[in-house]
Amino acid sequence: MYCNEVKSGQCDGRATPCVVKETYATALVDGRNGIGPVVGEFSMDLAIAKAKEAGCAWVTATRSNHYGIAAHYTLRAVEEGLIGISATNTSPLVVPTRAQQCVLGTNPISFAAPSKKDSFVLDMATSTAAIGKVEVQARKELPIPGGWGVDSTGNETRDPHRVLDGGGLMPLGGMEATAGYKGYGLAMMVELMCGTLGGGMYAHHIRKWTSTEHRPADLGQSFIAVDPEAFAPDFQTRLDTFIEEMRQLEPSQCGEPVLVAGDPERAHMQKVKEDGGILYHRNVLQAMETLAEWLNVAKLDTSTTQH
Amino acid sequence: MYCNEVKSGQCDGRATPCVVKETYATALVDGRNGIGPVVGEFSMDLAIAKAKEAGCAWVTATRSNHYGIAAHYTLRAVEEGLIGISATNTSPLVVPTRAQQCVLGTNPISFAAPSKKDSFVLDMATSTAAIGKVEVQARKELPIPGGWGVDSTGNETRDPHRVLDGGGLMPLGGMEATAGYKGYGLAMMVELMCGTLGGGMYAHHIRKWTSTEHRPADLGQSFIAVDPEAFAPDFQTRLDTFIEEMRQLEPSQCGEPVLVAGDPERAHMQKVKEDGGILYHRNVLQAMETLAEWLNVAKLDTSTTQH
Repeated sequence: MYCNEVKSGQCDGRATPCVVKETYATALVDGRNGIGPVVGEFSMDLAIAKAKEAGCAWVTATRSNHYGIAAHYTLRAVEEGLIGISATNTSPLVVPTRAQQCVLGTNPISFAAPSKKDSFVLDMATSTAAIGKVEVQARKELPIPGGWGVDSTGNETRDPHRVLDGGGLMPLGGMEATAGYKGYGLAMMVELMCGTLGGGMYAHHIRKWTSTEHRPADLGQSFIAVDPEAFAPDFQTRLDTFIEEMRQLEPSQCGEPVLVAGDPERAHMQKVKEDGGILYHRNVLQAMETLAEWLNVAKLDTSTTQH
Repeated sequence: MYCNEVKSGQCDGRATPCVVKETYATALVDGRNGIGPVVGEFSMDLAIAKAKEAGCAWVTATRSNHYGIAAHYTLRAVEEGLIGISATNTSPLVVPTRAQQCVLGTNPISFAAPSKKDSFVLDMATSTAAIGKVEVQARKELPIPGGWGVDSTGNETRDPHRVLDGGGLMPLGGMEATAGYKGYGLAMMVELMCGTLGGGMYAHHIRKWTSTEHRPADLGQSFIAVDPEAFAPDFQTRLDTFIEEMRQLEPSQCGEPVLVAGDPERAHMQKVKEDGGILYHRNVLQAMETLAEWLNVAKLDTSTTQH
């Protein structure tokens, strides 16, 4: 998808972002319709540099594109001993509380903080579930749990096909009785931090995820960095203690330990290390080979492939 | 409760907060065990002043107390044309995903942004419901919706008595299948922004809500202010448009219009204006009269009381 956009000129693969407005602790970055992660890394690194001077900093990027994993940016702050926050608006998939129509994105937010032994890494869509999870259930012809999605009239449904066919995802919290308006509020908050603050596309004005229309994404993102050393000393030690206290809580179900945000990903990284690399399905490897040929770049080194 | 704390010396009614550490865009405030709203207003106003200079600012208060309504502080930023964010840690009432025990507070977060006609005012606990809502259901002997609370073994229950009797509230999202771990993550994020950053009490170390133990609350709060004019011009006009677009969405149920965060409170303010004041139950007026006598202060002017 990204390659198609660059090939067609819908996204400018050569663009470098620039600062269009700046204060001591803020910056507005023009992504110049470049590749999302290029805009994102530029903006987060600027927030980090400014936070090291000012104590905290807020950088908003406009005319950006899909920036991938929100935690990729907040982890850059963590590597520098800072707290990182990042959010992005995305294509409309979520139906606001009481509405019928998809108008908000899954608008993820990430908050990551450094500790000595580990780190706290929250990276969450503001919807209950990702659209991919609904698609998987549809392919398996299995129902979805309540609170995941609505049909085309805005009513809760357990049928994944009805969600995909003119319905949409529910905001975190589900229906109104279970406080779905909070997830809706969070999704709109992210939109304000990204599209509204940056002056780019927002909500239902953003092109659809599967859209083939030829216009720039014009997504917005925000990047916040905060130096914990500007506050009470020894933040990292206190966070280690806090994380460990949560993990040591008595679990409700035997064998299902209490986790802290970032733990599932850490466990997976450990598995990858033990496996000696990432295990890909052969179809993925085939697709990457085709892509490499198309782009005329070196093929993926699969010398450690396990058959 | 607040008066009792001051009378007993558990909270210092005469304390004035002070800045103990400062950078260009941050400050650590020592609340000196004073009254929560005194510490809160001092800290938010400092964040506002700093944001006007630096573009954004982050102030964290430690040794504070219950600070009341989170949006009270973010609305101070809105009055100055700024975006305001505030959060506080609170007494343990929430059971983390997979756990059995109440260790986190309902840890509310508020995000408010100014627009020309209105404003966006999100103020939400990071739990699905407030404990008060569970108490009301218990008094009425009515069940609670799924996703609100767990019993003392950490399992979902519809019986409000089981939540109140050794159980606890669920984080926003409910159980694990409906992404309750996101609400748990948000509650822990607030704790990091407040207790961990400020170096005060946190999570289950905070005294219980109904506790009679004689020790300072030592709560933490964070206050963030951001100047939208430091980013793309005309933020307030764009926000007005966005808010109006959301309100105009086709509702799923006839007569239940789509709302924006802050709308229910605005509607209530309008009602109060039309009523010519706040309508109190006579028991509340009686309690306030008794309190005024005890404190030796002027009684509430009830000259417009409707009988």
